[in-house]
Amino acid sequence: MTARSSEFPHNPYCPYFQQAVELIGRRWTASILRALFAGNERFTDIAKTVPGLSHRLLTERLEELREAGLVTIEPGIKHGTYRLTERGADLRRVFAELEDWNARWYEADQQNLEPSAT
Amino acid sequence: MTARSSEFPHNPYCPYFQQAVELIGRRWTASILRALFAGNERFTDIAKTVPGLSHRLLTERLEELREAGLVTIEPGIKHGTYRLTERGADLRRVFAELEDWNARWYEADQQNLEPSAT
Repeated sequence: MTARSSEFPHNPYCPYFQQAVELIGRRWTASILRALFAGNERFTDIAKTVPGLSHRLLTERLEELREAGLVTIEPGIKHGTYRLTERGADLRRVFAELEDWNARWYEADQQNLEPSAT
Repeated sequence: MTARSSEFPHNPYCPYFQQAVELIGRRWTASILRALFAGNERFTDIAKTVPGLSHRLLTERLEELREAGLVTIEPGIKHGTYRLTERGADLRRVFAELEDWNARWYEADQQNLEPSAT
C-alpha cells in the first residue's frame, strides 16, 4: 500500500497518479491551493491572490477541489468559506518539493529562455 | 534564491510555480516522465507504457518537455532516443512526494467514490 520514494516508480503508468497530477495541473488550481496553504479561507481573499482569475473560474475550480475531497465549503452570505481537508493540506509536501525544484532551476531558466539549438 | 519547505509558501501566487505545475499536469506528460524515470529511452518503449497514448501526442509532449529543458532528443532512424536532463531527472523528488500522497489517500479514495452529500 505504501509507496516509498526509494522504490519509485514501481510502474511507469499509474492512472491514479495521472489523475492527481492532472487535477492539480489544471489552470489556476495549484495557485488556488497555494492561497489556501497560505491561510486564505474567504472566497474574495483567495480570488485576490491570483491575478486574472475570474470569480466564475474560481468557483468552478473550488468545486472540483471539493469533489476531489481536498477542500470543504462552508456556505456564506455571498460566497462561502473554504478550508483544506486533511487530505488537501497533505498536498503541501508535494508543493514544497515542486517549489524547491523551481528554485533550484530558476537560474538555469533565466539562462535558457531561448530554446537550445539541438 | 533557495526556497525552503519550512517557509513555504512565501507568496501564494507564483507564476513560475503555476507554469511548472501546468507543464507536468498536461494530459499524459507526467506519465511520460514516469516512463523516463523508469529507464525507458526509446520512443516506442515510452509509448508502450501509457495505454491509449498516440504517437502523435507523444511526439508533441516530448517536444514540450525538450523545450522546457527536461529531456534531450537524440535523433534515430525512425524515432529518437529520449533522455532526462539533470533538471528533468530532478523532478523525480516531486513525483515521489505525489506518489506517496496518492498512496496515503488511496484508501480514502476508495471509500469516497461518490461525492459527499455536503
